[in-house]
Amino acid sequence: MSDSTRRVGPRSVKQQKWWGWGAEGIEFSFADKPKFAPFVLKVLGVDVTLPAPRVRTFDSLDVPASQLSDSLRATLVGALGDEFVIDDDEIRVIHAFGRGVRDLVRVRRGQLGRVPDVVVYPGSEEDVVAIVDAACAENAVVIPYGGGSNIVGALEALPEETRQVVSINMGRMNKVLEINNAAGLARIQAGVLGPDMEIQLNAKGWTLGHFPDSFIWSTLGGWIATRSSGMQSDKYGDIAEVTRGLRMVMNGQVLVLRPLPSSSSGPSVREMVIGSEGRLGIITEAWVNVHRLPEVREIQAYFFPTYDAGLEAMTELAASDAAPSITRVMDANETQFSMANGKKSGRISHLMNRAVQEVMTRKGWDLEKIALSFVGYEGTATHVRYEKGLVGKIVARHGGMGVGKGPGALYDQKKYDVPYIRDFLLDRGIPADVSETATPWSLMKQIHDNTVAAAQAAMDEAGVQGFIMCHLSHSYHSGACQYFTFAINDASEQNMETYDKVKRAIQQSFMDNGGTVSHHHGVGEEHSPWLDQDISPAGVFIQRKLFDGVDPGHNFNPGKIIHDGIPGISSNSAQPE
Amino acid sequence: MSDSTRRVGPRSVKQQKWWGWGAEGIEFSFADKPKFAPFVLKVLGVDVTLPAPRVRTFDSLDVPASQLSDSLRATLVGALGDEFVIDDDEIRVIHAFGRGVRDLVRVRRGQLGRVPDVVVYPGSEEDVVAIVDAACAENAVVIPYGGGSNIVGALEALPEETRQVVSINMGRMNKVLEINNAAGLARIQAGVLGPDMEIQLNAKGWTLGHFPDSFIWSTLGGWIATRSSGMQSDKYGDIAEVTRGLRMVMNGQVLVLRPLPSSSSGPSVREMVIGSEGRLGIITEAWVNVHRLPEVREIQAYFFPTYDAGLEAMTELAASDAAPSITRVMDANETQFSMANGKKSGRISHLMNRAVQEVMTRKGWDLEKIALSFVGYEGTATHVRYEKGLVGKIVARHGGMGVGKGPGALYDQKKYDVPYIRDFLLDRGIPADVSETATPWSLMKQIHDNTVAAAQAAMDEAGVQGFIMCHLSHSYHSGACQYFTFAINDASEQNMETYDKVKRAIQQSFMDNGGTVSHHHGVGEEHSPWLDQDISPAGVFIQRKLFDGVDPGHNFNPGKIIHDGIPGISSNSAQPE
Repeated sequence: MSDSTRRVGPRSVKQQKWWGWGAEGIEFSFADKPKFAPFVLKVLGVDVTLPAPRVRTFDSLDVPASQLSDSLRATLVGALGDEFVIDDDEIRVIHAFGRGVRDLVRVRRGQLGRVPDVVVYPGSEEDVVAIVDAACAENAVVIPYGGGSNIVGALEALPEETRQVVSINMGRMNKVLEINNAAGLARIQAGVLGPDMEIQLNAKGWTLGHFPDSFIWSTLGGWIATRSSGMQSDKYGDIAEVTRGLRMVMNGQVLVLRPLPSSSSGPSVREMVIGSEGRLGIITEAWVNVHRLPEVREIQAYFFPTYDAGLEAMTELAASDAAPSITRVMDANETQFSMANGKKSGRISHLMNRAVQEVMTRKGWDLEKIALSFVGYEGTATHVRYEKGLVGKIVARHGGMGVGKGPGALYDQKKYDVPYIRDFLLDRGIPADVSETATPWSLMKQIHDNTVAAAQAAMDEAGVQGFIMCHLSHSYHSGACQYFTFAINDASEQNMETYDKVKRAIQQSFMDNGGTVSHHHGVGEEHSPWLDQDISPAGVFIQRKLFDGVDPGHNFNPGKIIHDGIPGISSNSAQPE
Repeated sequence: MSDSTRRVGPRSVKQQKWWGWGAEGIEFSFADKPKFAPFVLKVLGVDVTLPAPRVRTFDSLDVPASQLSDSLRATLVGALGDEFVIDDDEIRVIHAFGRGVRDLVRVRRGQLGRVPDVVVYPGSEEDVVAIVDAACAENAVVIPYGGGSNIVGALEALPEETRQVVSINMGRMNKVLEINNAAGLARIQAGVLGPDMEIQLNAKGWTLGHFPDSFIWSTLGGWIATRSSGMQSDKYGDIAEVTRGLRMVMNGQVLVLRPLPSSSSGPSVREMVIGSEGRLGIITEAWVNVHRLPEVREIQAYFFPTYDAGLEAMTELAASDAAPSITRVMDANETQFSMANGKKSGRISHLMNRAVQEVMTRKGWDLEKIALSFVGYEGTATHVRYEKGLVGKIVARHGGMGVGKGPGALYDQKKYDVPYIRDFLLDRGIPADVSETATPWSLMKQIHDNTVAAAQAAMDEAGVQGFIMCHLSHSYHSGACQYFTFAINDASEQNMETYDKVKRAIQQSFMDNGGTVSHHHGVGEEHSPWLDQDISPAGVFIQRKLFDGVDPGHNFNPGKIIHDGIPGISSNSAQPE
C-alpha cells in the first residue's frame, strides 16, 4: 500500500495505521500455521486462503474540513509551536476513532463521524494547561488520546458535536521521570506507550508489571483513564491498585495527588480519576508501583479435561496460600483456536504431541473439550518452586496435568499479535470483537455458559454462522474476569447490525448473570447503555453529579460513560432524572 | 457509679458509656503491672497511684431539649414503632459525639454541643428509607451512627445547626445475611459490631479478617464510611479492598452495587461511598470478602536494635516474596511503654528476661533504643513455616532477633483494651490521643523523626511535659502506616488548647513530610483543615462537587470531610472557591 511508508505527525510520536490496528507493515499471516485456515473454514464457513479484496486508499476518504478557528489555532501554535498543532487530514482521521471493530468497519467504509478539528501534541504539563485553557476559553471540546487502542468509543467526539474538537495526543510525554528505589515507585508521564516505558524501567532493573493485550498501543494515561488490567494483575494488581498518585489538568486548576500507599481522606479522588475516561481532566503523569525484575519468571501450561474443571481449579487456587502472577484458562473453543493458531514448528502444537494425546485418551478425556491453562510464577527460584508445588496439587485435584513451560513462553511472546487477526478477518468481511466481564466465582460457569448461548442465539436469529470463545484471566479473592472473543461471517453492508445484536446479547447476558459491563475495557459510548444495570440508576446518578459538577460546560470528552448529550443540543441519556 | 447499671436504649443494641470508651464496668487497671506507674511518672510527671477525683453524674449535665417536631416524630414512630424512636437525654448525649479525646473532655465538662434531637433504630433497609424520606421531607439532618467510636468528629452535628438532627443508630441491623461459599463473599448488615459479626462468621468457618483497634465498638458500616483498616490488612486488605458491593439509602433512591471482584465501569462509585462518612447516604449492607479460618494463625515477636533497623527490615519485607498477615514495629518509646504496660506474670515482661537482655547487651544494643516488632502469619502449617523462614532471614539481615510467639499472642488478646487507658489518664487530667498517617517507605524515617520532634516542640512551647510514641503497621508495596500516640500532662481547663497545638503540629508534620491526613481514621471535622494540603485544592473541589451534587440540601451529615457550612447559615471552608 502506498500509505505504508507515509510519515505522519511529529517524528517522535508513533501513530497507528489509519485503517487498522498497529503499525503499518505488520499484518497477520497464517504461514506455517497449517491448521488455521481449516479451522476458520469449519467454525465460520470462510475460506481465508482466497485472495482478499483490499481497497484502502486514504485519498478515497471524504474527510470533513477542520472547523478550527483562527483564534484557537493561534493560541495553540503560540503555546506549542507550529510543529505540534496539526490539522492534516490523515492525522485527524487517525485520531477520530479508537480501534474497536466498529471503528475499523466505519473507517474502511469512509464513515468518519465527527473528525477532530485539530490534533495537538503537548510536550509538558504546561503545554496541557495551555491547551485546556485555550480550548475552554472558546468552549471547545478536549479529548485525550494515548495509544489510540480504545475499543469502547472513548476517543471519539459525539456525532452531533458542533463545538470545536481538540484531540490531545499525549505521545510526546513519554518519559520515566523518577524512580524511588526505596518505595518501589516511579513517576511516569501519561503519554508513554507500554514498550517505551518498560525499556526505561528495565534499564534500571524495574518493571511496572502491567501488560494488557493492548500493551504496544496503549499508554499509562490511557490505562488509568480506563481502569485497565494487565495480564499479570494477579500479582501486580489492576491499574487502580498500581496507581498511587497522579496529576491531572482540569479547567483552571491542576489536581495533585501525592503517592500514598493508602489513605482515608474521604471518598477517593484517586479512584474518581481512575476510569474517568477524560471527563474530569487530562492526566499528565502518575506515581505507580514498580517492582524489581524477578529472578525467575515462568509460565507453566496445564491441561484440564474441561473448562469447568479449570474454573473449579482456579476457584480453589484463589482461596489457597498460592499467589501466582497469572491465571488463565481457555474454554474448549479457545483451546481449539489456540491450537489451530499454533505454528507447525512451534510449541503450541508440540504440546499436543502424540504422547500427550495418548495420556489424555487413556484418561478418557474428550479432546474436543479440553481446556488449556497458563499459570505464571515470579520471584526467587525457591519461591517459584514453592508456588508451583502448591498449584500443582490443586491442578491435580481437579484432574489437570502439567505440560511444561514451552507453550507459556510462546504465548508470552506472541500475545500482542492477536489484534492483527481482526484486520485480517475484516479484509475477508468477518467482524470480530471482544467483550469481557468480571463476576464472583459462584457465577463463573453460569455467566460463561449463558453468554455463549446468548451470543449463539443472536447469531442464529440473524442467520449467520459465528464463533465465540472465552478464557478466564485476572483472578481475585472473590472472582475473576472472563474474556469473550467472537466473530461473525457477515460481510454484508449491514453486518454492523448483526454485530450489534450479538454484542448486545453478550452485554445483556453479563448484566443478567451478575457480571459487570466491563472488567478492563471501560465504558466509553459502547457500554454506557448497560451502566444503570451494572451500578444501578443511583450509581449513574452519582457519576453524573460528579461529571456535571466538575465540568459543567461538558468540555471534557463529553458523552463518554454517561451520555447526557451536549448542553443545548442533545440528550439521549438512558437514565434521565 | 450509679450510672453503671442503668439500661438505656433498645435492649438489643449495645451502648457505650456516655462519659467514656466502651461498656460500663470495664476500666483500665494497673494491678499486676508494677512498671506502669513509675513509667507514667517518668515520662509525664504524673503519679497515677494517687486517687483520681471522679465526679460524673449524668444528672449534672445540662442537656438541651430536643427540637424534634411532632410531625417528624409521628412519621418516625409510624414507621419504626415507639420503641425505636428515642429522645431520652442519655441516649441523645451518647449519640452527640464519637469517642475522640476532645469528645471525652467535652462531655465530662458538660460541653454538649448540638445534641441530636432524636435517635432512631432502624431494623431494616425499609426503615432506613422511611427515616431518610421523613427527615428530608422536613429538611432535617441525618447522621449515621455505628459503634460510636469515631475519633475525628464525624458523628456530631455542626454546632450552628438549626435544623432538626436525627441520629440513626444502625445497631439493630446486625446480621450476617448470606455467605457465598464458592466466592468467599458475605452479605452483612451495616450495623453489626465487630465481635457480633465474627461470631456469626466463625460459626460457619469464616472470618472477615478485619480487626481495627476499635473492633469491639465499631461496625461494618462505620468501617466502610471511614475507610477503615484492620490489624491484618497486610493479608486481607483495607476495608476499601474488602468491600465488593453495597447498598446505600439516598434521598429518594437506593444505590445498589452488586459484588464484583473488579470492574471498569467508570469512576468507582464503590470508592466514592467508601470514606464518604455519611455525606452521600446511609449504608445499609455490604458484600465483603470473607476467608476460611486459617489452619494456623501465629504472631511472632522480634526485637530490633533500633526502630530504624525495624523500618528497614519492613521495607525489605514489602519488596520480598513474603506475604505476612501483620507487620508491626514499635519505636523506642512505644517499646518501653509496651514493656511497662506488661503484667508482671505476663509474657511481655517475660520476653525481656535475663537471658534475652544478656544477648542484647552482648550484641552491644542500647536497651533504651530497642524496637519490639510483631509479624503475623496465617495459612497451612507448611505455609506459615515457609513464610517465617523468609521473614527470619530478612529480620536477621537487619540485626533483629526472634523471641517467640508468646508476646504476640498476648498482644493479640489485649489489643482492644488500649482505649480504656485514655479514660484512666483523663481521670487524672491527662489528655491522650492518636494520629496516624501513611507515606512511602522512603519517607518513613523522616516523617517519624520530624513528627516526634514537631510534637515535642509544641509541648515545649506550651510548657507541658508530654510523651509521644509510634508504631509502624499496615504495610503495602510502596509504604506503610505510622501510628502516633501522645499524652500531655495538662489538667488545666485550657488543656484542649494545648492538645490542639500538639495535634496540629503532628498533622502539619504529616503534610510537610509526604504523609496523608489519616491512614484509617477518616477526616470528619478534625482533619478537614489539612485536606487541601493532602489531596490538593482541586481534590477538595472534586469532593465538594460530588457532595453538593448528590446532596444539594446538605441533609446528610453536613460539614464532615469538607465544611462548607449549612446553606443559608454559615460557611467556614478552608478552600472557598
